[in-house]
Amino acid sequence: MALIVQKYGGSSVADADGIKRVAERIVETRRAGNDVVVVVSAMGDTTDDLLDLADAVSSEPAGREMDMLLTAGERISMALLALAIRDLGEEARSYTGSQAGMMTDEKHGAARIVEVSPLRVRAALDQGYIAIVAGFQGFNRDSGDITTLGRGGSDTTAVALAAALGAEVCEIYTDVDGIFTTDPRMVPAAHKIDRITSEEMLELAAAGAKVLYIRAVEYARRHGVTLHVRSSFSRNEGTLVVNPKEGETVEEPLITGIAADLSEDKITVVGVPDVPGTAARIFTIVAKTGANIDMIVQNASTVNTGVADISFTLPKSQVPAALEALEAGRAEVGFSTLQHDDGIGKIALVGAGMRTNTGVSAQLFTALSDAGINIDMISTSEIRISVVTRAEIVPEAVRIIHTAFDLDAEGEAIVYGGTGR
Amino acid sequence: MALIVQKYGGSSVADADGIKRVAERIVETRRAGNDVVVVVSAMGDTTDDLLDLADAVSSEPAGREMDMLLTAGERISMALLALAIRDLGEEARSYTGSQAGMMTDEKHGAARIVEVSPLRVRAALDQGYIAIVAGFQGFNRDSGDITTLGRGGSDTTAVALAAALGAEVCEIYTDVDGIFTTDPRMVPAAHKIDRITSEEMLELAAAGAKVLYIRAVEYARRHGVTLHVRSSFSRNEGTLVVNPKEGETVEEPLITGIAADLSEDKITVVGVPDVPGTAARIFTIVAKTGANIDMIVQNASTVNTGVADISFTLPKSQVPAALEALEAGRAEVGFSTLQHDDGIGKIALVGAGMRTNTGVSAQLFTALSDAGINIDMISTSEIRISVVTRAEIVPEAVRIIHTAFDLDAEGEAIVYGGTGR
Repeated sequence: MALIVQKYGGSSVADADGIKRVAERIVETRRAGNDVVVVVSAMGDTTDDLLDLADAVSSEPAGREMDMLLTAGERISMALLALAIRDLGEEARSYTGSQAGMMTDEKHGAARIVEVSPLRVRAALDQGYIAIVAGFQGFNRDSGDITTLGRGGSDTTAVALAAALGAEVCEIYTDVDGIFTTDPRMVPAAHKIDRITSEEMLELAAAGAKVLYIRAVEYARRHGVTLHVRSSFSRNEGTLVVNPKEGETVEEPLITGIAADLSEDKITVVGVPDVPGTAARIFTIVAKTGANIDMIVQNASTVNTGVADISFTLPKSQVPAALEALEAGRAEVGFSTLQHDDGIGKIALVGAGMRTNTGVSAQLFTALSDAGINIDMISTSEIRISVVTRAEIVPEAVRIIHTAFDLDAEGEAIVYGGTGR
Repeated sequence: MALIVQKYGGSSVADADGIKRVAERIVETRRAGNDVVVVVSAMGDTTDDLLDLADAVSSEPAGREMDMLLTAGERISMALLALAIRDLGEEARSYTGSQAGMMTDEKHGAARIVEVSPLRVRAALDQGYIAIVAGFQGFNRDSGDITTLGRGGSDTTAVALAAALGAEVCEIYTDVDGIFTTDPRMVPAAHKIDRITSEEMLELAAAGAKVLYIRAVEYARRHGVTLHVRSSFSRNEGTLVVNPKEGETVEEPLITGIAADLSEDKITVVGVPDVPGTAARIFTIVAKTGANIDMIVQNASTVNTGVADISFTLPKSQVPAALEALEAGRAEVGFSTLQHDDGIGKIALVGAGMRTNTGVSAQLFTALSDAGINIDMISTSEIRISVVTRAEIVPEAVRIIHTAFDLDAEGEAIVYGGTGR
């Protein structure tokens, strides 16, 4: 008998029909002879409705009481799911984050899991119950206060439970069929990836692929949890995210997937002194605004003028604060001007096969150059190449790369319909 | 510094404006120099909405998971209240039933409080916080499962906390001004009672007065908690429900209040053998259907026929099951026919002064007889007289009694507007 953890997001349990459909799927898994632990998010609009109420009574809702409020959402969906399962003839028991032993630190709204002790979940399984656990929530180990895990919290709950319980697989149900070679809305020839390593998945997620949260993938990688990303609207197999053991032979395609990201802008600090410590000063200033700096390129001065330009990308929403902070630090850094480019797009190629194949960069640059596409910035990791180009040209560039690396499916892929939540 | 427990019902926190109004009232109490513990029910329609959802996914929603579901309601209202309070410049901490140490038995949907251990609530007060506790909920001391207390649960939560914390007073906020001498919709001359003993309040509640639940009053009486029933929509003093110590002199009016109840029917078992054990057989049969039998009258046979009639009243909804069970037991009991009267009304006069005044019954019967009103059944306790008459005549009878016992206010009373929830 295998132990399977299944996670259903808010769009899968958006209404009573969704809850009943999910209940059927859970009961099916149970009756196939598995122990089942289900992690569920709040129903579709519940969280937004609660946020609206909070805004109506408070000018700055946050902290402990917001977590108390928002965790009502999963309480509702998990109890309804348990009721629906009983109606199908199986018995389920639902557990809040605290009851399931999800201990976190004290950071309300963005707590980190520090320990998972699912004693009651284990006991429920031993008694033959299906266990349902509220996603996204835990409790502060020191104070006992309810906490929420922030973005991607329910995925992380599922992975953490799968790790603590030693589950065979953690199934992440979503509204798309799995992980695709690239966004099928952009590239109709994109196809579902059957199997990807967690390392590749991390790079894709970091580069803008939205189906899985980095945090959950990291947790899965660290604890050796196999993920299965699949659709709650079909019975198709989805994408397995695996953790091959060292030395294990895995057939590694040169490029597994391509992520495109139009959510960042570029800031260029022009004319900074070309002396040690300048970059550190700039990024200390920017980091203090809480900005997530992504790619960095320093263009050293071509003639020996003693000044250079430093460019970096960051999410659009963080640009104003970063510009303001840099402006305030102008004297300290000693730059001449700031440039802000809101028309960039980022493309990342990810593939574990890059490790053993040195020709990828050349093949990429040739393909883009043949198509007359200019590259603005480049950064690489062991299994990833990222380039920055103009935003409007990104879809065409991705299609060209997808074809150049033989990723095109035979015929058109299923249309990518979801929000990737 | 006094410790005050305040309980706000669902109609007081029906929407964001209600929550803000309640928050102001709480902050006012705090700034007057009191420690404040607030017990709050779910917002207006939340419980009904959750019940609808449960009905949509399950054919018979009940038990552990229904309690998990319904307790989301108070979680929402208490967190919003805490946020609203912070917006007014005071700090509040909300606690679920389990966090507040409300231990109950295992009976889901109708759990009884077995122990109250509000350590975290006490700690919050010591740190200067306003403590908000979810009404209506607790947890099974043995299993740790969430339970709900059933009807009147939030009032009971408030009283139980007041007792455990040694509060000076437990204020029950509602949408009426307090306890009235009788229902002002029926008797415009009814007036608010300033002070009533818990013993009298119990009798009135048992006789159909709806502002307070019997269960909460019983708890208050047993633990010596003073209740203050008042409106959340005005600043008027309401009604104090007190527990005079033995020997304490209390000015006891002959009649404190009059309750009318049109929710019961009468069943008469005609022609039962006038031998010992017959009544026991009848009421054993009826009790097995779960019926709440109220008044019982046995009319012994006037001539020595050896048969008698036994009449009793019970809630209308319980009549069909009772009739069916009696019919099935006809041979066992040996009665001739069953009569069902669905046109009765019950009037109860309550007053601690009755103990020391023997003329009340005579005065009552004279007043009714002068008005040509027939009495069908009579029952009495130490401080109550109940009579059954025709339903359509109840309003007139209550007005006559109200006047006869000098309860009429000068001028008309404020119109009674609420549901008494």
